[in-house]
Amino acid sequence: MKYLIGIDVGGTATKAGIFKEDGTLIDKWSIDTEIGDNGIHIYDDSTALIREKMEEFSIKQKDVLGVGIDMPGPVYADGHLGKCSNIFITGGYPAEEISRRLSGIKAVAANDANAAAFGEMWQGAGKGYSSVCMVTLGTGVGGGIIMDGEIIAGCHGAAGEIGHIKVEDRETEVCNCGGKGCCEYYASATGLVRVAKRIAANGDPLRPFVPGQEILHPESGISRFGEELTAKDVCDLARDGDACAIEAVDFSMDKLARALGYVSYVADPEVFVIGGGVSKSSDILLPLLNEKIVQYTPLVREKERNVISAKLGNDAGMYGAAALALYKIF
Amino acid sequence: MKYLIGIDVGGTATKAGIFKEDGTLIDKWSIDTEIGDNGIHIYDDSTALIREKMEEFSIKQKDVLGVGIDMPGPVYADGHLGKCSNIFITGGYPAEEISRRLSGIKAVAANDANAAAFGEMWQGAGKGYSSVCMVTLGTGVGGGIIMDGEIIAGCHGAAGEIGHIKVEDRETEVCNCGGKGCCEYYASATGLVRVAKRIAANGDPLRPFVPGQEILHPESGISRFGEELTAKDVCDLARDGDACAIEAVDFSMDKLARALGYVSYVADPEVFVIGGGVSKSSDILLPLLNEKIVQYTPLVREKERNVISAKLGNDAGMYGAAALALYKIF
Repeated sequence: MKYLIGIDVGGTATKAGIFKEDGTLIDKWSIDTEIGDNGIHIYDDSTALIREKMEEFSIKQKDVLGVGIDMPGPVYADGHLGKCSNIFITGGYPAEEISRRLSGIKAVAANDANAAAFGEMWQGAGKGYSSVCMVTLGTGVGGGIIMDGEIIAGCHGAAGEIGHIKVEDRETEVCNCGGKGCCEYYASATGLVRVAKRIAANGDPLRPFVPGQEILHPESGISRFGEELTAKDVCDLARDGDACAIEAVDFSMDKLARALGYVSYVADPEVFVIGGGVSKSSDILLPLLNEKIVQYTPLVREKERNVISAKLGNDAGMYGAAALALYKIF
Repeated sequence: MKYLIGIDVGGTATKAGIFKEDGTLIDKWSIDTEIGDNGIHIYDDSTALIREKMEEFSIKQKDVLGVGIDMPGPVYADGHLGKCSNIFITGGYPAEEISRRLSGIKAVAANDANAAAFGEMWQGAGKGYSSVCMVTLGTGVGGGIIMDGEIIAGCHGAAGEIGHIKVEDRETEVCNCGGKGCCEYYASATGLVRVAKRIAANGDPLRPFVPGQEILHPESGISRFGEELTAKDVCDLARDGDACAIEAVDFSMDKLARALGYVSYVADPEVFVIGGGVSKSSDILLPLLNEKIVQYTPLVREKERNVISAKLGNDAGMYGAAALALYKIF
C-alpha cells in the first residue's frame, strides 16, 4: 500500500490528511497555524504531527509517495513562495522545508486556490475533467485554474485572481486591491450582502448603503436582518420570493458570470467548479450562473456552459495537496 | 544536420518554410490557399511543394525532425480541427493529413494565433520567456497564450479570444461575434479607425459615425482622410499632434489594456507581445499600453508590465509551426 499526505496551510488553521494512492482519506486533522518567525512553526508543527500519524497507522517512510503542501500565497514554478499576506510569510521553498523535516520524503508546494482546484479535479466535482476553473466564494472570490492537468501559476502572482477582475465601471467605492468595481465586491459572500443592503436601502445595487440612512424598502427581509445579514440569508430570502433579495442574487451572479466569461475567453476551461460558503445555496445560484455566462460568451458554441457545485468543501485544498504529491512529484 | 518544416495556413495564402534545428530559416515560400473540398487541396499542395523543396536542398526524410502546421481555427488537444470560418474546413486531423502525404514524417497541428505566439517565443520578441501572450492587431484582435511552454488551447475553441472580451458597457452597435463592446471593436486596426471617425465626427468615441453626417471636428486630419483613413494614418496623425487622433489612440489602447489586464488576472503571462499591422506604430502605441495596463492590474506588484513589439511579422505562424514540430513532437 502506498500513501500520500496533503497539508493545507490557512490563515488560522492548518489541515492535513493521509490518503491512499486511490484518493481514499485515511485520517485528517487540524492544528492552529502558528504565524510569525517566517513560517518555521508551521513547518515544524505540521511535520511533527505527520510523523505521529505515520507511526499511529504504521506507515513506513518508503511507502509515502510524497507530501503536498499548499500555502495562502503565490508559489512560483520553481517552488519559491511569494508574499502570504495572511500569515506573514514571504519567500523560501515550502516543499524543501517539509522534505527536510521528514527525512527526505519528496514534497511539492502550490498556492491554496490552485490546490483546491486540483483537489476537486482529483476526488471532487471536477473528477473526469482535465481543465477546471475552481471559484471559491467566501470573504473574497478566489480562483484556481488547471488546464490539461497543469496549474496555471502565472508569473507575477496574479493568475486566477478572478475576484479582482473589473466588472463594473460605475462603482464609487474602492476595493482593498486598490481597484474599483471588482468581481468580488459584488459576488463574494461579503459582496452579496453589500449588494442586498444597497438594493433594500436605495433600490440601486451601485449606490452605497450608509448605516442609519432612510430605507427605501423597509418591507424587505433584508432590511429586517440589519447588521446580522449573511449571504445565506440573502439566498434564503430570494428563495422565499423577497424581491430585493432576488434582485441582489441576480445582480451578484451577473457580475460573477461576466468574470467567468472572461476566464472562458482567456483560458477556456471545460468546467467551472463553484465552492466556498456561498456555494451552499447553489440551488439558487448555479442556474443563474449557467444562464448568464452564456450571454457573456457568444463565441462558445455549446449551449450549456458547465458551472457546477464543488463537493469537497473545506477539504479541497488538503485533497489537492495530496493529489499534487501524486501527479507532480514524479 | 536536422531540419524542421513549418506550414502556416491562412485564408488567402499558405506560407511554409524549412528551418535548421537552431531556428535558422533556410527557405520560405507562399502559395494560394485553395479553399473548398474540406481542405484536401491545402494538404496536397503544401506537401507537394515540401517534397520539391526537400529535393532542392537535398534534405533526406530521416533528417526532418517534424512538420508543424497551423490552421485558422481551433485545434483541440487530440489534434482534431474545429470550424475554420475563413477557409470552410471543419474537422479532421491536419497533422495526420500532412504526415500521411509525407511518408510518415511526424507532424503536429495548432491554431494559428497560438502558433504565432510560439514562433515569437522561439525566435522573435518572446525569446527567453516561457510564458507569453501574443496579441495580433489586424482586422480583428487575435490572441495566443503560452504558459510554461504549453499552449493554452482551451476546451470550446474560445481560449485566447482576447478580441471578444467585453470592455465597454455603453456600446450600441453589435460586434460580429454577437456581443457588444468587444475589445477588437476599438483596438483592432478597423477598431482604431472606427474610434477616430467617431471622435472626429461626434467628439465621442462611443457615438457611431454616420456617413454624410455633420462633422464636429472638420479641422482634424481624420476628417480630411475620409473613407480612406487607415489605422496607420490615425497613428501618424497622433504623432503629429492631431487632437482627435491622440484621443482615439488613447481610447483604443485603454480598451486593449483593459483586456490585457484581464489576461493577467486569469493566466498572468510574463510578457505581452503585440503584433499585426497596427504594431508598426508601436512607438506611439506601446508606451500607452505599458502605462495603462498598470491601472488595470493593481495586484501585480512589478511596476512595469512588459508589453513589447513582435519581431517576426507575418512569418510568426510559420516559425511557430516549425517550433511546435521541434518541441511538441517528441
